[in-house]
Amino acid sequence: MTTRRERANAIRALAMDAVQAANSGHPGMPMGMADIAEVLWGDFLHHNPTNPHWPNRDRFILSNGHGSMLQYALLHLTGYALPIEDIKNFRQLDHHTAGHPEFGHTPGVETTTGPLGQGLANAVGFAIAEKVLAERFNRPGHDVVDHHTYVFVGDGCLMEGISHEVSSLAGTLKLGKLVAIYDDNGISIDGEVHDWFTDNTAERFRAYGWNVVVGADDKPVDGHDPEAIKAAINAAISQSEKPSLVICKTVIGFGSPNKEGKEESHGAALGVEEVKLTRERLGWNYPAFVIPEEIYSSWNAKDDGARNEKAWNEKFDAYAAAHPELAAELKRRLSGELPKNWKDGAAAFINKLQADGPVVASRKASQMSLDAFGPLLPELIGGSADLAPSNLTIWKGSKNISTGGAEGNYIHYGVREFGMSAISNGIALHGGFVPYDATFLVFSDYARNAVRMSCLIPAHAIHVYTHDSIGLGEDGPTHQPIEHLGSLRLIPNNRVWRPADAVESAVSWKKAIERTGNPSCLIFSRQNLKHNPRTEEQVANIEKGGYVLFEPAEKFKAIIISTGSEVGMAVDAAKSLGDQGIPVRVVSMPCTEEFDAQPVEYREGVLPSWCRARVAVEAASVDFWYKYTGLDGKVIGMTTFGASAPIDKLYEHFGITTTAVIDAVKGVIK
Amino acid sequence: MTTRRERANAIRALAMDAVQAANSGHPGMPMGMADIAEVLWGDFLHHNPTNPHWPNRDRFILSNGHGSMLQYALLHLTGYALPIEDIKNFRQLDHHTAGHPEFGHTPGVETTTGPLGQGLANAVGFAIAEKVLAERFNRPGHDVVDHHTYVFVGDGCLMEGISHEVSSLAGTLKLGKLVAIYDDNGISIDGEVHDWFTDNTAERFRAYGWNVVVGADDKPVDGHDPEAIKAAINAAISQSEKPSLVICKTVIGFGSPNKEGKEESHGAALGVEEVKLTRERLGWNYPAFVIPEEIYSSWNAKDDGARNEKAWNEKFDAYAAAHPELAAELKRRLSGELPKNWKDGAAAFINKLQADGPVVASRKASQMSLDAFGPLLPELIGGSADLAPSNLTIWKGSKNISTGGAEGNYIHYGVREFGMSAISNGIALHGGFVPYDATFLVFSDYARNAVRMSCLIPAHAIHVYTHDSIGLGEDGPTHQPIEHLGSLRLIPNNRVWRPADAVESAVSWKKAIERTGNPSCLIFSRQNLKHNPRTEEQVANIEKGGYVLFEPAEKFKAIIISTGSEVGMAVDAAKSLGDQGIPVRVVSMPCTEEFDAQPVEYREGVLPSWCRARVAVEAASVDFWYKYTGLDGKVIGMTTFGASAPIDKLYEHFGITTTAVIDAVKGVIK
Repeated sequence: MTTRRERANAIRALAMDAVQAANSGHPGMPMGMADIAEVLWGDFLHHNPTNPHWPNRDRFILSNGHGSMLQYALLHLTGYALPIEDIKNFRQLDHHTAGHPEFGHTPGVETTTGPLGQGLANAVGFAIAEKVLAERFNRPGHDVVDHHTYVFVGDGCLMEGISHEVSSLAGTLKLGKLVAIYDDNGISIDGEVHDWFTDNTAERFRAYGWNVVVGADDKPVDGHDPEAIKAAINAAISQSEKPSLVICKTVIGFGSPNKEGKEESHGAALGVEEVKLTRERLGWNYPAFVIPEEIYSSWNAKDDGARNEKAWNEKFDAYAAAHPELAAELKRRLSGELPKNWKDGAAAFINKLQADGPVVASRKASQMSLDAFGPLLPELIGGSADLAPSNLTIWKGSKNISTGGAEGNYIHYGVREFGMSAISNGIALHGGFVPYDATFLVFSDYARNAVRMSCLIPAHAIHVYTHDSIGLGEDGPTHQPIEHLGSLRLIPNNRVWRPADAVESAVSWKKAIERTGNPSCLIFSRQNLKHNPRTEEQVANIEKGGYVLFEPAEKFKAIIISTGSEVGMAVDAAKSLGDQGIPVRVVSMPCTEEFDAQPVEYREGVLPSWCRARVAVEAASVDFWYKYTGLDGKVIGMTTFGASAPIDKLYEHFGITTTAVIDAVKGVIK
Repeated sequence: MTTRRERANAIRALAMDAVQAANSGHPGMPMGMADIAEVLWGDFLHHNPTNPHWPNRDRFILSNGHGSMLQYALLHLTGYALPIEDIKNFRQLDHHTAGHPEFGHTPGVETTTGPLGQGLANAVGFAIAEKVLAERFNRPGHDVVDHHTYVFVGDGCLMEGISHEVSSLAGTLKLGKLVAIYDDNGISIDGEVHDWFTDNTAERFRAYGWNVVVGADDKPVDGHDPEAIKAAINAAISQSEKPSLVICKTVIGFGSPNKEGKEESHGAALGVEEVKLTRERLGWNYPAFVIPEEIYSSWNAKDDGARNEKAWNEKFDAYAAAHPELAAELKRRLSGELPKNWKDGAAAFINKLQADGPVVASRKASQMSLDAFGPLLPELIGGSADLAPSNLTIWKGSKNISTGGAEGNYIHYGVREFGMSAISNGIALHGGFVPYDATFLVFSDYARNAVRMSCLIPAHAIHVYTHDSIGLGEDGPTHQPIEHLGSLRLIPNNRVWRPADAVESAVSWKKAIERTGNPSCLIFSRQNLKHNPRTEEQVANIEKGGYVLFEPAEKFKAIIISTGSEVGMAVDAAKSLGDQGIPVRVVSMPCTEEFDAQPVEYREGVLPSWCRARVAVEAASVDFWYKYTGLDGKVIGMTTFGASAPIDKLYEHFGITTTAVIDAVKGVIK
């Protein structure tokens, strides 16, 4: 009979062999955590290798994602569609075994990890989603939403600030089905951590309100003793009031006679000779990439998985019989499909706004959009990093998830921008929700790599950023974004909307909601913005990211391109220039990436190549805009940081005025 | 005789009046922390209002910087050059009372704060600087470097992840002269914090190894009881083995009958009527902005400050008599002046590199530069966020500050990118050091707002980012920067250097070191880079950020602009095109911002306006480069995320090849 240690050694062998073949990667962590993984996946994890999308599976997340071979070995051994060829081609182009686990790239990988700490944050998002979805949909006797979220974390994850943000929040929210397992191996890349990481992690997590599982005398659990690990995980899941941290002491690179317990095993192949010695030490007498059938068979989880899913399917059928509407709605939400009445409802609101023409700040228009769209979209779940009264992210239907029970749909994130945004990614990936989060645009910096991860994963997370320019006024340069619009636009697969009025704001929300599986950033002003008259066609064209908002009576000689709060100024300038006999077109460009994605004919219709007399105006870094103005145009915007003063003084001070736009147009007309 | 409460009420009155006059700002915190500030500034803080630059002053940092009026009131009352006119014009253009405290803008402000948590991180940097400088320069009987760093923090600071990173490190480093005072008022913008912030903060900080000062029964100190506050601060400074956290319970907006203890007092003027009622409640019977002479006089710290400084000057004279060379060196280092032998030493190394022509990765060239420049610059202090063996930031003279005693100059930051970078800002602002820090370029995201703050403050911090493109290979898209170069360049006042070989690498270090008072980002490759031949003039021109690296024999018809690892490809393409009868110039552009800062004649000499056949090549987001290529040129670079594979496969896969550059040049030639 296959022993636990043999099963664990299969992981170790695959990890060291794959890294050796690639001559690149991280063998130490998989070899160190193999025994823990063996117990968790063998004894606890409910999943179905044949259907990685089974909705009620336990979620497994590898926050220390550099140990990706651990996850690939587990997926391969338990029977996911990840053949040995992929393992042999670890880290190679066109194989499903990337350097770090990537969602959508490898079956069974729940999220993309590697940037340390974010996997833990995603896991908190998964656990929030499970909890809120269960409260919404479960009924007595029908716990159809009922799974755990397991996450492996390393020293690096726990040193990162984001681990504080999300663990603190997880404790406050009492996420009892979240189980984090800490690989306390005492090694990071610089060596033994005692000179830079001396936290009492158990005490730290108790201070967050977690259930901390350790062994006798408050010592860590022995991460190489399966029975101790099993008891620890049992202790974690046997209570449901608090998230659990299981602290396991492990030996990095376990089994490597000369490199175990040392940094040398962390991030490079062990070397051909050391791999050989490790085989001997582990008693693993099989060639590279060969796993004996018996061991494969003991790992195979397809039958168990099918039983798991079947049992749940029967449970769900009973639920559907008792609560048909709820069941249908849950199915819809898990599928990511928008409600049937969404399209019409959204269009009606947008058309009404165009007719009414409210003059409001776009952050207010955002709230109005939430008030209109929220009732149509029960999957909407949102929050703000302690700026709800400023971000205006609380709408009429918002209910705190801590106290709202089945109606809960609002998360008071506290001052935790990075954690919030990475939690959003986790919620989106779990399914059943469309999450939005919010802070001031300048503090998108704090969240930046989570926004990048939204785009890379990709995840249907909507990031709302208000107070979008020097227009926020007196808070001054620390709070005034300059480079942020351009920076966000540079992230591949992002959509950054900076609407010019209430109508464009509603369209930006609509587009973000409809961008299923992909993120958007919605950028809103603090200050009031004028309403713009539009034809039906113009309203429809907003969705294209850039469109002709103002056309002069005569053939235009120049184009002003603008976004958001500066569009009003652009139109004023064009009208004044028209009065002076210079016909000028105004292009409103709320989303440059969406515009770039349009067919060339459309783009050429809006920004014809023949017209090089182009002026861009945006109260932000000028550099981004040369992409549209070229070397013959001119950009009105910011080249320095802002200052602390009332808004009008600032626009004047920094030369972002109608007069400046007029002068610029005159300057570029040949 | 003026009572403590009257002195504190002077702060409260100035704060509420200034915010009322501006109709913008945050009265709640200054009114809540006034009693604490009164005790700290009255009984403990060693400073000299007449000379805010006195080197041995205690440092005071307001991490909860939205309460800026607290600091302005303190500076004004104690006699700094901050007249009542500035207080009356709080948050107005051209006054020294910005919305958030700004270094260089207001005398006595040690750092720019507002982005929450970073003031605490800066404070950790100040405390590290003090400790390392003291170890280096103090001698028995001559404690010439000997001051405390005090920092006020709020709930927001402690929710932010960065507070974890820097507090954990501060505990490990045993920064005994760091005293953080926590304004535990239980209120954040979303309201009472119990739904989103339930940490046991005392336990959390004990887990970091801090000395936590609380009152009886582990309850917070009463932040409105001066004697309790005094005892608590005494308890903090009476030990020197651990950093201290003094937890004070306060009432936000203390004194406002209808708004104290509520979010309403946090971020908006109290209102004319409430200001009146608060005056009555506090018994403050003076008009707005009027402080009775007696209270001014009791606050005035000029005489005490002069005595403080005089006593230290005498101490320093004795030190200088006993240790003249040390004293001279300390003076030099505090002045920020580079050593006399710096210029020649740096030039000699650069010239030798140009002659030797080593073919190395630029991260290796960076380490060679550190080996060459380090011995010339004892003020260099550096570290890496746990990537020292990859970032190559440890040079031959590096000594761990934990164990290196007087020679300590290297900080093992652990996996704490944001904390590290904000600590760098604090070290730079303290004086006596030129700090560098390091991580992978992709993780500059984690540190991003601290890099912004380096530029805004500005602070002479050098941020080193290695593994700068898809060239890092197998680690895959989570670790491959795409948008980061462009994003960093968009930050005002930044200098981003991406050198093409060892010589440009050394020049970039030289420029960063010489950019006194201002930051730079140095971007280095993982992979080896070819050496480029250069004339003396070309070597000199590297410093200008962009220069002609390759000129064809015939008059050029096109220009290829490139940076870093793609410059070799650009030169190969130009040579090949030359062979095909198409003469092409290559411009190496290691620092676009430096190039933009050159006189127009120089820029025109390098990139003449007549030549619109321009191709830019950089293995990064293409969007940034249209600034130089315009609409007629072409950019070879990245438009998507990367992938996990060996480097050569990736360049081929993403079409960043010599062939692609050649084709692009042919395409743009009219």
